[in-house]
This record gives sequence, C-alpha cells and structure tokens, in this order.
Amino acid sequence: MKELYVDLGERGYPIYIGQDLLARRDLVVSKIAGKQVMIVTNTTVGPLYLEKVKALFQGFDVDTVVLPDGEQYKNLDTLNLIFDALLAAKHSRKTTLVALGGGVIGDMTGFAAACYQRGVDFIQIPTTLLSQVDSSVGGKTGVNHARGKNMIGAFHQPKLVLIDTNTLNTLPQREISAGLAEVVKYGFIRSPAFLTWLNDEMGALRDLDPGALTHAIYTSCQCKASVVAEDEKEADVRAILNFGHTFGHAIETFMGYGNWLHGEAVGAGMAMALDLSMRHGWISLPEYEWSVDLIRKAGLPVFPPEEMTPEHFIELMSVDKKVLDGSLRLVLLMSLGFAEVTGKFNSDLLQQTLGKSDN
Amino acid sequence: MKELYVDLGERGYPIYIGQDLLARRDLVVSKIAGKQVMIVTNTTVGPLYLEKVKALFQGFDVDTVVLPDGEQYKNLDTLNLIFDALLAAKHSRKTTLVALGGGVIGDMTGFAAACYQRGVDFIQIPTTLLSQVDSSVGGKTGVNHARGKNMIGAFHQPKLVLIDTNTLNTLPQREISAGLAEVVKYGFIRSPAFLTWLNDEMGALRDLDPGALTHAIYTSCQCKASVVAEDEKEADVRAILNFGHTFGHAIETFMGYGNWLHGEAVGAGMAMALDLSMRHGWISLPEYEWSVDLIRKAGLPVFPPEEMTPEHFIELMSVDKKVLDGSLRLVLLMSLGFAEVTGKFNSDLLQQTLGKSDN
Repeated sequence: MKELYVDLGERGYPIYIGQDLLARRDLVVSKIAGKQVMIVTNTTVGPLYLEKVKALFQGFDVDTVVLPDGEQYKNLDTLNLIFDALLAAKHSRKTTLVALGGGVIGDMTGFAAACYQRGVDFIQIPTTLLSQVDSSVGGKTGVNHARGKNMIGAFHQPKLVLIDTNTLNTLPQREISAGLAEVVKYGFIRSPAFLTWLNDEMGALRDLDPGALTHAIYTSCQCKASVVAEDEKEADVRAILNFGHTFGHAIETFMGYGNWLHGEAVGAGMAMALDLSMRHGWISLPEYEWSVDLIRKAGLPVFPPEEMTPEHFIELMSVDKKVLDGSLRLVLLMSLGFAEVTGKFNSDLLQQTLGKSDN
Repeated sequence: MKELYVDLGERGYPIYIGQDLLARRDLVVSKIAGKQVMIVTNTTVGPLYLEKVKALFQGFDVDTVVLPDGEQYKNLDTLNLIFDALLAAKHSRKTTLVALGGGVIGDMTGFAAACYQRGVDFIQIPTTLLSQVDSSVGGKTGVNHARGKNMIGAFHQPKLVLIDTNTLNTLPQREISAGLAEVVKYGFIRSPAFLTWLNDEMGALRDLDPGALTHAIYTSCQCKASVVAEDEKEADVRAILNFGHTFGHAIETFMGYGNWLHGEAVGAGMAMALDLSMRHGWISLPEYEWSVDLIRKAGLPVFPPEEMTPEHFIELMSVDKKVLDGSLRLVLLMSLGFAEVTGKFNSDLLQQTLGKSDN
C-alpha cells in the first residue's frame, strides 16, 4: 500500500492506494465524526461492492442510496435523490457521505456533501481508474447542466480517499483506457520522466499489473496534488490540469454525453493540443509523433469524430469555462512535460488543428 | 448613510445603509470584477425597482432573470432558472450576480453564485426589512427541500450589501412586522440596551421613520456580524442566531411554507423560547411579560397556531438541524439579552411550553 497526504492545512487528507483496501476498517473508522454514514453508489457498482463497503462501516448507522449509472444522470434531479435519502433517514449535520463508484458518483456525492445542511463530511472510494487519478485530488465537485459540463458545483475536500486497485478488475478495458488518458496527461503537463515510464509500462498497465497500477495512480495523484497545492482555487496554475479538456469537452458535448467516454475525448483533445503546440514549434515533430503514439498505445482515439468540423469546435468551445471575457485560452505544451495556459496562439494554426482529420 | 464593514479577512465586505442608495453608482462600481452582471429579482420587486437597479449598473453587460415570488419557489427547480439564464447569456466565471429582493431572492442568488462554475461574485440589494437585517451578514445561502427548510446550501459571502431604506415604503405592513421579529431577536440574544431602545422606538419603526430604521438595521447587522465573526462556520456561538427559530421552523413547516411569514413564526417561536426560559427561572415573570409585549408591539403573534399540538412540535423539530445525534438543543435566554445554545433543559417544562396556548 502507498499513502499520499494532500496537504491543504486543516482541510488536508490522506489517499491510500493498494490491493484489498476495501477490507481495511482501520483506515476509515477514525475519519467518521458522527454515527451516521450514507453510502452513495450506482446500479453498476452497487451489486459488485456495496456489501463489502457496508461491512467496512459496520457499527455505524449505515444507509445507502443507489443512483442510475451514467453521465446523463449527473444533474440536479439525480442530486436531489441523495438529499431525499439523507432527509428521509434524518441524517444530521454530522453525517458522513461515502462515494462508491466512478467520477460521476464522486462528483455528485461530493457536491451533495458540500450542500447538505451547507456542508458535511465525505469519503471517496473511487472504483474506476479515471476517478482514482482524477477525482481523488482537487476537491472539485458538481453536476452538469444541459448547456455545459460541470457548470454547477463547489470546492469540497474529502476526509479520506480509499483506492483499492482490485476494483479495476471488474472495469471494462475501454474504461481502463479512458482512465489512462488522465494518467498520460500528468506526464505531458509536468513530467518527461513519467512519460518515459508510461511508454515502457503501458502493456503492464493495460494488463492491470497491481504494482504498475499503484505506481501510476500514486504518481498521478502526487502530480495533481502538487499542482493543486500551488493553486487550490484554480486562479491560474491549476488550469493546466485541463490539458486536452477544452477540445475534449467540445467533443463530448457534440457527441452527447456518454457516447464518447470522457477519457476518450480527452485522448483526442490532447492529440489536438499536441498538434497545435507542434505547429507553433514548441514541441518537435518527433516529440509530437511519439506523444500521439503513446496516447494510441493507451487504447485511445487520437482524432476527433469525423463529422466534427472546425465550426463545431469554435461554437462549442465558446461556452467553455476557458472563455474569459470573450478570449479563448488554451492549455498548450511549451515543451514536452511542461504545459502553460495561454491566449497567445495563432488562430490560423488553431484552424489548421481543428480541420485536421484522420483522412 | 451608515457604513458597516464585515471583517472576514479577504472575504470581508461593506454594508451601506441609508436613503436613496439605489442611485449611488460610486458605491457599487468598484466591486464588479468583470464586465457581466446578472440581476436576479422576482415578479413583485422587479416592476418596482429593476429599472433603477439596471441604471445603477449602466456600462456593464447587464442581463436579468425574474423569478416567481414566494418561499414555495425557493427550491432546486427555481435555482436552475438562474443557471439557465447565466448559461444562455454565456456568463463567465468573472460574472457578478445581483440579488434584488427579499430573503428568498438573496438566498437563492447567493447559492447560485456559490455554485455557478464553482463560485462567482454576488452583491446583495435586500428590499425587505427581514432580509436587510437577516441576510446581509453571515453568508448563508440555500434553498428548501420538501422535507425541510434551508437543507441545501452553502456559505458564500457577498462583495457588498446595499440597503436602501426607501425600498421599505413599498413593503406591506405585515412584512415590516415580520422583519421586526429579527430586529427584536438581536436585542434578546445580545443587548438589553437595544431592547430598551426598541421598546421606545417601536412606533417610529412601524411608521417607517428613516432615522429609526437606519439605526435599527445598523445595530442588527452589527450584532449579527459580531456573532458571526466569533464563529463564521456556526460550530457553536452562531447558533444563538436561531433564537426562536427551532419552534418557528416547526410552525412554518406545519402551516405550509408561506402561510405564516417567517418572521411571524419566529415571533411566536421567540415567545415560546422566552416562556421556556422563564419556566426554568432564567428570566423573571415580569421580564417575560415585558418581552412578550415587545413582540406583540412589533405586530407579531406570540402564540403558535391553535391547531398545533405538542406532538406536532416534537415530530417537526426532530428533523430540524438542531438535532445533533438525537439530542435536541435549543437557544434559550440565560438572562434578558444573553442567549445560549443548550441541551440542558427540563423536558417536562418543554412539554408545558409546547402545550401552552392563547386560551
């Protein structure tokens, strides 16, 4: 087992990563302030792990709420089901919510915890690779709006993140790849050495080798924690975590939530950001090709959907949060392993990137 | 004009109180970070003051959203109308929301600001006496749930509160009285001197004398600010602000939101809390009678609805936020002008208080 402490002063918390952690009562019990626990999961993860997690919290007053599974349910209506369950079972301000599932469950449970009686504790038990490396650090919670992803939310830190790598054994290969998109991202924005390691170990990761997974998750969380520590409220530095995401969000919105996995859209989005960085001469052609190949080896698409035109991108990116008083800002690489948020890109080159296709 | 600065470090902000402040562009302009402003109001206040407030923000990109009026609309569905408007007009993370209306508008607009893109600025322009003395300080925002009031929300501080006492000229007398409930409350929990002043000036206040109103609003905000400064997150001290509210919330829930005004329920609730304090011998019978008379002079009920039984109260108070691991805690007076949160009350005496009626 590896442990990472996210140092945010009085809001700091530990992340535990390893095998068989769902049985480790000793790691969680001291983090529960009251007697009540509400486990929030979904119809896919519940049948697999709910009984195990209920046992983890034996001795507390445990209630559960099982939500429908899917990004399309990440909205205020589904959020209200959590509030319904909390109020029906008379949970007090001292309750602890437990998010058991992927990023959607984590984001909604965290947001429910941020808002229920104006803020209660919560614990993350992420069961997908994407949520393990992405949602464990940063405290971002929220839901989607019909007009844009993650438009409604809060910053709210968990008391503890428990990552049991065994839960990945039940995850479809396609979702492993989607998670690897964010893992690879950390290499691109912060660490050439991690990129090299990923290039060597991609096979082991896709085969779910526990040692390789633990290292990749630990390194990803550590990288994100260092970025977040520099800038907890995303005024500036933190925005580099959106590498590939502005293009990716446009792809997701265009395709309709849930048709492309988030990680798949980020894979193609990162390839586009790499392309634009290369067109500016900030990374070389060999670096670009090596990088795109790494994304491909993770099992991810490296081009947007064929039917998406540059006009689609421009339209969809204009409601993106990166619009700051009308000027689009993008996360681009200044060199391999070093990202920056910039509005200083050439719009003709952007058009070329948006117009590039698989053909 | 009087000015009060609420000192919360980097989240501190000024409250301006006086006549004709809706024309004072100089007070607001420096508080707007970006170019976009979204004024949120309702169908009652909008026709009276929206054009004036739009003029106040001339030169900015001003959008407006007009919500239905009433506590029954203080829910997630109405909140979503604010998000719809913000996204339809492509408001960025640098937007400023302006709450123009009473407590419902203030709470919902503040909560929308807390959640929109995980937090944007907002300005309060409260137009009811209740919201001027209650919502100006404390940063509490939120919406109701069918199972309980203010169960979903956030702490989010405004950049500025602008209180124009002229707006009270269009307020029904019944709502003036409801606002006076909170004014009187500050006397009960913190200041015997203010209680005496209120007893002398109650007539002037009900006649909307601008000088008396400005003093009462200023003193109320100052009192609340001093309580909140001691305990911004309501771990402990802040709960004394709920004097009369545990009983009051039960009355509101029993009657259905909107049938009794919040302040009316608080008036009766304070009388009940005074009754229970008197039964414990913490205040004397003459103090009790003088106090109840002050509530009555404010134009407020001093008994709960006849049809409410002690059993109704017990049932409805059990979902109240004051339930802490199963033990009810109440705000009671230890002497006139000094409140405490306590679980150490005699439950037989509570039963007597709950069973007391107008008959």
